[in-house]
Amino acid sequence: MKNPTKTSKPVHIVVLGAGFGGLTFCKQLQMPGARITLVDRTNHHLFQSLLYQVATCGLSAPDIAQPVRSIMSDRPDVTVLLDNVAGFDLDQNRVRLEKNTLSYDYLVLALGGQTGYFGHPEWERFAPGLKSLDDALRIRSHVLLSFEQAENEANTAEHDKLMTIVVVGGGPTGVELAGSFAELTRTVLKRDFRRIDPTQARIILIEASPNLLSNFPQDLSASARQQLEALGVQVRTETSVKDIREGEIIHAANVVWAAGVSATPLTKKLGVELDRAGRVKVNPDLSLPGHPEIFAIGDMAFVPQADGKPVLGVSPAAIQMAAHVANIIEQKAMFAANPSFRPAFKYWDKGTMATIGHSAAVAWIGKLKFSGPLTWLAWLFVHLIFLIGFRNRTSVFFQWAYSYFSYKRSARLITNRPLKIEPEKPTPQLTPSPAIL
Amino acid sequence: MKNPTKTSKPVHIVVLGAGFGGLTFCKQLQMPGARITLVDRTNHHLFQSLLYQVATCGLSAPDIAQPVRSIMSDRPDVTVLLDNVAGFDLDQNRVRLEKNTLSYDYLVLALGGQTGYFGHPEWERFAPGLKSLDDALRIRSHVLLSFEQAENEANTAEHDKLMTIVVVGGGPTGVELAGSFAELTRTVLKRDFRRIDPTQARIILIEASPNLLSNFPQDLSASARQQLEALGVQVRTETSVKDIREGEIIHAANVVWAAGVSATPLTKKLGVELDRAGRVKVNPDLSLPGHPEIFAIGDMAFVPQADGKPVLGVSPAAIQMAAHVANIIEQKAMFAANPSFRPAFKYWDKGTMATIGHSAAVAWIGKLKFSGPLTWLAWLFVHLIFLIGFRNRTSVFFQWAYSYFSYKRSARLITNRPLKIEPEKPTPQLTPSPAIL
Repeated sequence: MKNPTKTSKPVHIVVLGAGFGGLTFCKQLQMPGARITLVDRTNHHLFQSLLYQVATCGLSAPDIAQPVRSIMSDRPDVTVLLDNVAGFDLDQNRVRLEKNTLSYDYLVLALGGQTGYFGHPEWERFAPGLKSLDDALRIRSHVLLSFEQAENEANTAEHDKLMTIVVVGGGPTGVELAGSFAELTRTVLKRDFRRIDPTQARIILIEASPNLLSNFPQDLSASARQQLEALGVQVRTETSVKDIREGEIIHAANVVWAAGVSATPLTKKLGVELDRAGRVKVNPDLSLPGHPEIFAIGDMAFVPQADGKPVLGVSPAAIQMAAHVANIIEQKAMFAANPSFRPAFKYWDKGTMATIGHSAAVAWIGKLKFSGPLTWLAWLFVHLIFLIGFRNRTSVFFQWAYSYFSYKRSARLITNRPLKIEPEKPTPQLTPSPAIL
Repeated sequence: MKNPTKTSKPVHIVVLGAGFGGLTFCKQLQMPGARITLVDRTNHHLFQSLLYQVATCGLSAPDIAQPVRSIMSDRPDVTVLLDNVAGFDLDQNRVRLEKNTLSYDYLVLALGGQTGYFGHPEWERFAPGLKSLDDALRIRSHVLLSFEQAENEANTAEHDKLMTIVVVGGGPTGVELAGSFAELTRTVLKRDFRRIDPTQARIILIEASPNLLSNFPQDLSASARQQLEALGVQVRTETSVKDIREGEIIHAANVVWAAGVSATPLTKKLGVELDRAGRVKVNPDLSLPGHPEIFAIGDMAFVPQADGKPVLGVSPAAIQMAAHVANIIEQKAMFAANPSFRPAFKYWDKGTMATIGHSAAVAWIGKLKFSGPLTWLAWLFVHLIFLIGFRNRTSVFFQWAYSYFSYKRSARLITNRPLKIEPEKPTPQLTPSPAIL
């Protein structure tokens, strides 16, 4: 007889979300007798940090996404479901999905965030955010189509509008997007048009606060700004977007929103206390107040640190939180008597980096600050290491090398045809605060 | 003074379509003083022969497409326009596009074909064809989503329907699609589900005539059938599709139409004689009857050969026709007096090949017939050689090698979210001729 002492009832753990948090939890948890159901609304894990490269024609969608099933194929204890969360019955230990209802012993909430418009959901229409592959493919098609239309356009005002790209938000995503758009127009598209001059396209980066990359030390922010301006980006700090509508101040056919992130709106259905960005205020062990069997991790969790600042919504934080929760659940016998014995989560900040363009980047690791080509190289390798899937890693490396040396980008495709800009559509324009511009 | 003798008025050549025909024409034509305008409705040249690999998760879209502008960037004499053809004023030597009107000295029609439904356009809704990247991405998402839904489905009949893929048409595209779907379900998806068994998915290939690959010699057709059946494909020849609607005979969530090709419907606007498939009946030199300044090439041209059979709608034919027309236009002075001195087009058939799956293929070159793994290897290299763009070639080679050795496919992404199968939609089902099934 094998394992005659093992008599415990199998534990069922439901994990919602297959981002860095949910996936790390599943990979980390090694618990005999446990059964995991992993639910996501898409069929793939997305490496969001490189999404801007899909939007700017550098990488193709499959390079930065991996099917969740394929990542979990060697884990017979993990069942993957493609489904949407409909609601929670926390008192009955049940999650209602659109097509299934799941009972759980432990529930791990790792549903991530979404683009936040500061109470202006109507802006999304004119300024799409960058959270999913579909977002990125749409932005890519829209920008390429604008240049095609400019090539066909005789009217100067219309022409200038088509050749203007506005990126709202000077955080890492905004900086990376603006730098990458500048390179796309300055080098890649340079010789491809006969009537327009893509190098004259306006790339405008708008940031409300006085500095780009406001989480970085000020000298790195200044360096990022300088590197962006060298690429031809117009940086406008202390500029807040007042209204995105058919205004008069900046006419732009392309506006990308990289300014705000809020937690998934599903947190509202939990009936627990949330912060202003909609994140769940968790206990120090990351469990929900009053629910030791439920944990929230990653971008949807509000976790204050010793200095009072919350942990940033970045993938290393989600990964560390996932490992923390996996440890607690694995040692459940130890904490069963009193959940207050559970250890508190402590974030280890390994540093932050942002890339700006062809061999330009800034990084900040502990007390050390870096910028320039070597930082860019380091950025490259850190991102390659974290890309899940051998094939993706090699393909991405190859495409980076190709576009680095050839100044070409291979993924310059207009697909998603329904998104063709109709002339009768209201023209998306941007009116930043007139006091400042 | 440079070129003091050059006094001739510049010649303007309009090329409609950036497929193999249009692109080869532009690359081939070296004519001082000529100006080319190349018009396409998409921004990319598509390597259609590999489209089935995008539909079956093997390659990503950018691997088989290259921006037309980037292909023509070193040709300042070529202007590329993204536009749709609206109509022709042949007597005024003018083409009307949606956004431009172009006057021409020579007009090269290379607009290709579209999926033909034999007079049943309503079938397209249930059985999409495979002609564009959007088609391929939609089929990919639809098939992957069906398996996800099957994993969630308790009802057996519904479950079986979701796990049935029907390919209509046993030509090279149908054979390649069916073989590739069989491999996807038999090997790639094998271990990824917990409730359904993807290896039990039904892949049905329907062909109206007695043999698959009817252009091939009969023993190769038989070999193709055998190789497909070994992969688990149910081949039904002498079976014609009677009606695609909410029928009862084969319940399939996924139907792909690979049965018919017809010329672009724009040929109807030319006011010249067409064949049954809508192709333009050209003169032996490929010019339009009554219009020595207009040529039709590729899939939209009906070109009878010595044996009475028309030239097949394949890329080598389009390439050869393009070169033929470029020669005639380059030597225009010689033929100006009498266009009837122009040489007749003669097709050189270099052979045909079709791949069936992981190291299975058939080929037919002159009197030689091949099948098996070595043929598959030859197919691989022929297709790599013809892929336009260094980066695509290397990336495709790498991905093929990866999926060959790992039995994985990297492009297993569900995107294009609007195409989510809604339960209230009429269920696409297929009713083949009841007399035969």
